[in-house]
Amino acid sequence: MGYFRENIEKAIGYIPGLQPDKLDIVKLNTNENPYPPSPAVLEAVRNISPEQLRRYPQPRANNFRTAASQVFKIPAENIICTNGGDELLSIAIRAFCDENRCLAYPVPTYSLYPVLAELHNCPTIEIDFDEEYNLPAKLAKTDAALTIVCNPNAPSGSFISPDELASLADEISGVLLIDEAYVDFAEDNCLGLLAKFDNVIILRTLSKGYSLAGIRFGFAFAHRRLIEGLLKLKDSYNIDALANETAAAAIQDQVYFRNTVEKVKAERAKLTEQLKGLGFDVLDSQANFLLAKCNNRDALELYERLVKRGIYVRYFAYPTLKDKLRITVGTPEQNDKLICALKEILSK
Amino acid sequence: MGYFRENIEKAIGYIPGLQPDKLDIVKLNTNENPYPPSPAVLEAVRNISPEQLRRYPQPRANNFRTAASQVFKIPAENIICTNGGDELLSIAIRAFCDENRCLAYPVPTYSLYPVLAELHNCPTIEIDFDEEYNLPAKLAKTDAALTIVCNPNAPSGSFISPDELASLADEISGVLLIDEAYVDFAEDNCLGLLAKFDNVIILRTLSKGYSLAGIRFGFAFAHRRLIEGLLKLKDSYNIDALANETAAAAIQDQVYFRNTVEKVKAERAKLTEQLKGLGFDVLDSQANFLLAKCNNRDALELYERLVKRGIYVRYFAYPTLKDKLRITVGTPEQNDKLICALKEILSK
Repeated sequence: MGYFRENIEKAIGYIPGLQPDKLDIVKLNTNENPYPPSPAVLEAVRNISPEQLRRYPQPRANNFRTAASQVFKIPAENIICTNGGDELLSIAIRAFCDENRCLAYPVPTYSLYPVLAELHNCPTIEIDFDEEYNLPAKLAKTDAALTIVCNPNAPSGSFISPDELASLADEISGVLLIDEAYVDFAEDNCLGLLAKFDNVIILRTLSKGYSLAGIRFGFAFAHRRLIEGLLKLKDSYNIDALANETAAAAIQDQVYFRNTVEKVKAERAKLTEQLKGLGFDVLDSQANFLLAKCNNRDALELYERLVKRGIYVRYFAYPTLKDKLRITVGTPEQNDKLICALKEILSK
Repeated sequence: MGYFRENIEKAIGYIPGLQPDKLDIVKLNTNENPYPPSPAVLEAVRNISPEQLRRYPQPRANNFRTAASQVFKIPAENIICTNGGDELLSIAIRAFCDENRCLAYPVPTYSLYPVLAELHNCPTIEIDFDEEYNLPAKLAKTDAALTIVCNPNAPSGSFISPDELASLADEISGVLLIDEAYVDFAEDNCLGLLAKFDNVIILRTLSKGYSLAGIRFGFAFAHRRLIEGLLKLKDSYNIDALANETAAAAIQDQVYFRNTVEKVKAERAKLTEQLKGLGFDVLDSQANFLLAKCNNRDALELYERLVKRGIYVRYFAYPTLKDKLRITVGTPEQNDKLICALKEILSK
């Protein structure tokens, strides 16, 4: 064929977790929140007018930006909204990286980062985490134009302290993007770095803590000048009117949000103990999923047996992950079904 | 600052037409359809479930692809869906172009093309239209990796026959992207080229003919291998659940669609005559807007006087456009207000 650039021809592209249309499965594979979004979100959907559908939406999703500004006490000019967190990652790589400007990140982590780098034809510097997922010292010594740290990290659920990331931001000459997709389930976050550093971007999403994976809404905080540059790269109307309204409604209902998050955290603690009781090694997680090492059992086989029972978790064919399963924390009922199925499978 | 790539630092970015939040203006500046979307679309919005908001959406918007496949009699594997037509344009430039692989297009046209090229740091070849907006012969002689022809063209409303574009597709070695954003208002279209050419992409949108600018929904038809390559570049879940459902509902209501389009076309004919009667030169348009040359009057001044009266049209500070206004065809009431205002202004 030969119409595409060479790197595109060669690329495989990102392979997302399975999204079966069936509703009767136990879906613990792509880290959705198991609870529905706030009733205020449904109300916002019901209130959409034909006029909002007919007209172009707000170019910068100002309804959400205004609401988020109030919730986080950060000016709207320091916020950019994107079509899911993935769009922000894509925009950042296109903004800062090219054939001569590298992307660096510790591994294993969110497997989209190298995919986006390949599509953009920029070199990557991957630095291995140690077994405890501490921040690798070498990460501060690269000449990367962009460094990404997923925190809490996926798929480990491990958390690096804001102080350590502040030191990293201070040492590097490029931009530090802290991917806080899962931070709603963590004990701390890095928003405090924004006042000190002009090279820090903090990425958030409504897909996890706010139960809105279906509407695709990411947003990021950064210095005004970074935001201005990133805005050039987004499509003029990247956020649709429905997403803008539902996202604004979700972020404003902090009571519902906190309640949902606490329920997930309580289940996370319970599920951790249950999995340990079944002989898995489980890392302490600050996210809404667990990374469970399958001692004495083949992880891929376990994964496939669960799928046969209608239970979907995530398996990664990656050297340091292929003996582990990543399990999203579900509702008490979903988690019980998982534990029962595991007990049955493991007893055979 | 220096964090960004040089081309990004220098870029200004695309400046969209004004999108005032006020609802009491006469908005004829960004080519929205003046009629509301099909009632089936509202119904689809009302039927969205919390579960659809909570879960990740279909990665390839299959509900829409299936519906579009039936309407257009083209297999779903030849269709890609994007977050507005703009995302498809961005994806195509990233797929085919780089520093050594050019983008070519006739000018004047949709002003986003050079902006996307600048952000991607790829060279452009701009070939001037003649005064009748015929297809420039030189366009077939470039070595561009990607050639874009907007057809009907914006902001002229002119139309190039499918036969001429077939010849162009045959002559060039790269890909021909036919941007049919406005084709719903034209007498013909280029879908017939798909069976003959493996290098043709046809871009459509729901923003104009289907009155859904607010939901951001573009889609494109092409050879399966082109679609497969383009899919690698889109974000995993670029279409949200609400957009997928509303778009599928819109495309299935072809009766409503045709009725709306016919109303716009009837108003387009009437408005053309009225503007000519006021001394404007108006090109025959196959789109939902008119390009009116302001004889004896300063176009920018006219534009500003209309804004003062709450009537928004579009002015472009471009050499061959700066004596003209682009006017979206509105409802009969909106068009009457425009004509009345112009009569008043011109009589002074």
